[in-house]
Amino acid sequence: MKRLTILGSTGSIGTSTIDVIASRPGEFRVVALAGGRNLDRLAEQARALTPELVAVADAADASRLAGRLPATIRVVSGRDGLVEAARHPDADLVVCGLVGAVGIEPTFAAVDAGKDVALANKEALVAAGAFIVARAQATGARILPVDSEHNALHQCLRGESTDQIKTIWLTASGGPFRGWTKDALAAATPEQALKHPTWVMGPKVTIDSATLMNKGLEVIEARWLFGVSAARIRVVVHPESIVHSLVEFVDGSLKAQLGRTDMRHPIQYALTYPDRRPSTLPAFDLVAAGPLRFAAPDLECFPCLQLAYDALALGGAAPAVANAANEVAVAAFLSHRAGFYDIPAAIRAALNRHAGAPAATLDDILDADRLARQTAIDVLASGVQS
Amino acid sequence: MKRLTILGSTGSIGTSTIDVIASRPGEFRVVALAGGRNLDRLAEQARALTPELVAVADAADASRLAGRLPATIRVVSGRDGLVEAARHPDADLVVCGLVGAVGIEPTFAAVDAGKDVALANKEALVAAGAFIVARAQATGARILPVDSEHNALHQCLRGESTDQIKTIWLTASGGPFRGWTKDALAAATPEQALKHPTWVMGPKVTIDSATLMNKGLEVIEARWLFGVSAARIRVVVHPESIVHSLVEFVDGSLKAQLGRTDMRHPIQYALTYPDRRPSTLPAFDLVAAGPLRFAAPDLECFPCLQLAYDALALGGAAPAVANAANEVAVAAFLSHRAGFYDIPAAIRAALNRHAGAPAATLDDILDADRLARQTAIDVLASGVQS
Repeated sequence: MKRLTILGSTGSIGTSTIDVIASRPGEFRVVALAGGRNLDRLAEQARALTPELVAVADAADASRLAGRLPATIRVVSGRDGLVEAARHPDADLVVCGLVGAVGIEPTFAAVDAGKDVALANKEALVAAGAFIVARAQATGARILPVDSEHNALHQCLRGESTDQIKTIWLTASGGPFRGWTKDALAAATPEQALKHPTWVMGPKVTIDSATLMNKGLEVIEARWLFGVSAARIRVVVHPESIVHSLVEFVDGSLKAQLGRTDMRHPIQYALTYPDRRPSTLPAFDLVAAGPLRFAAPDLECFPCLQLAYDALALGGAAPAVANAANEVAVAAFLSHRAGFYDIPAAIRAALNRHAGAPAATLDDILDADRLARQTAIDVLASGVQS
Repeated sequence: MKRLTILGSTGSIGTSTIDVIASRPGEFRVVALAGGRNLDRLAEQARALTPELVAVADAADASRLAGRLPATIRVVSGRDGLVEAARHPDADLVVCGLVGAVGIEPTFAAVDAGKDVALANKEALVAAGAFIVARAQATGARILPVDSEHNALHQCLRGESTDQIKTIWLTASGGPFRGWTKDALAAATPEQALKHPTWVMGPKVTIDSATLMNKGLEVIEARWLFGVSAARIRVVVHPESIVHSLVEFVDGSLKAQLGRTDMRHPIQYALTYPDRRPSTLPAFDLVAAGPLRFAAPDLECFPCLQLAYDALALGGAAPAVANAANEVAVAAFLSHRAGFYDIPAAIRAALNRHAGAPAATLDDILDADRLARQTAIDVLASGVQS
């Protein structure tokens, strides 16, 4: 029986993880859960899964939640609580489904404690990839990517040597705004952006997908997961989202991973790795999937992708800065306080101001993240809003 | 330096193999060549590659050839000569590019001698897969498939466990007659059949591709290469020939291998395995490749595919019988002595008469092959010709 900690259990990845666990009775035991502010769902999950530990964001929520759970379940809160869940001594594998930079510390904590991590939180690697990967190598912790693209790459690289990679091709659906003009994009609303054509995901990732910042973050994530330089990581638009990514090898051969657009597939892959276990989900039908199309991304209309490459080239704290500014701008866009192109404007401003921030330690990275957030808030408030 | 024997060196696979070797100076040394009746090309190859041994089909050709080569090169002939080349003590890897059932004995001889085999001759596994695979397992010889489809599957299965395969999907271009009616097919000529839309191959394989018998032979080949039952091997038409085949795993994930339609890619893969070395061929361009389409095969218009499944289900000598009858019928079709639908008619007749022939030894298989050839000749002569 594999013992799991689920960080972000009430979110999209967390609930899908619990679905997968429920479909495979007797295979997994959940020892710790961490949720945010959705106390009802967290309480329900805790009663069903009876973990030893539950972490919530807020101290006041912790005591409210404790009153609703059996006394055998310990409830903790805040960043310390989250890190405690990530390090839970009984866990074999930590599923990190947290959204945003809040995932950095617990992901580092999990690999520091030698835990394998099923990682859906791309921001942890974007901001602190150098630290997390080095720590994982030192402790022997494995990072199993859950993001469908990196999960696809992980599958394509089984039995292969990463030094024989010529190019990693990250596929991008192109999001809901593929083919839109710059003028139309300037007036795009969060409601339009949330209508993703192929994937059901949380709101932050869905907006990132609409700006292509998601793909930019994935480029940075791939750089750390697979140890490949930015020049070898490219993006290709594939509107059907059937091919989840490809690896081109030095000998001219490409391998691709394909399948349904259901996050429970990559989650199950990470949970049962290195085994593959029968899925209870519907089978994929290649003939019914229709023609598979591929096109170059439009960097003019979607500047965030290039900004991510720029941040990766700048190195140091720059990716953390770009990521933090993006989080602030996406939140503003979602609540109608910013326009579509305010998102790249905020990232650009934060990079201009903080790309050179110290980046010698994980704390430096967290400081750069905070600085970038404040700059993004200031820039958005100063009325770049379109 | 890897030492090679090339069987069928003057054919399509053989000359492509020599191209690959020439593109990687210092990596390979050719110790033996075996050709058929193209003495000029064989002499030229032997002078350039200076192997220790050259085998030709005919004894009279052998003495003619010996007179044109340095005395250090020994020339042998006939089936014994071919088997001697296949067992050459200095070879690390035997490239088997022979066409047809003539490949059975030397392929068996090579694995019997513990040689790794880069196998492009599908008929050897079709007719004698059980014997060849068992012998390879006993001696530790590896069979590295060169056929683009099986080479693709081999790549997709790196780092995977074959017991976690749900379905092997062999892609078929559909050949030059995809979408033709039965009436049109009944009148199809060899000249039309030889215009393959995506691959440049020898005439036998090209006709097999037009009848879908090629895909049927590949189903049988896959059964032996990967130890997967016929029920788990399926065919999907993919007119672009970009996806060279796919593996669907039990967890619902699919892996595909993609690339240019140039046999030098799978040949190089087999020659340098397990390494991948940089290719001197043009890179593949996914965007330029255009939409990738997939469709179910038309078993009505192309009965050979089902006949191959039938032969595999019958087991024993049946696949050898079907293969032998097909070879005879294809030769007749190529020389305008038989029509398109005489090919399945000859296979069906041979299966009806000889499917139950003894199959306890490799000699039994070779006997069944001979019986089936005679039956096919008789059936074609008796005027089923359309």
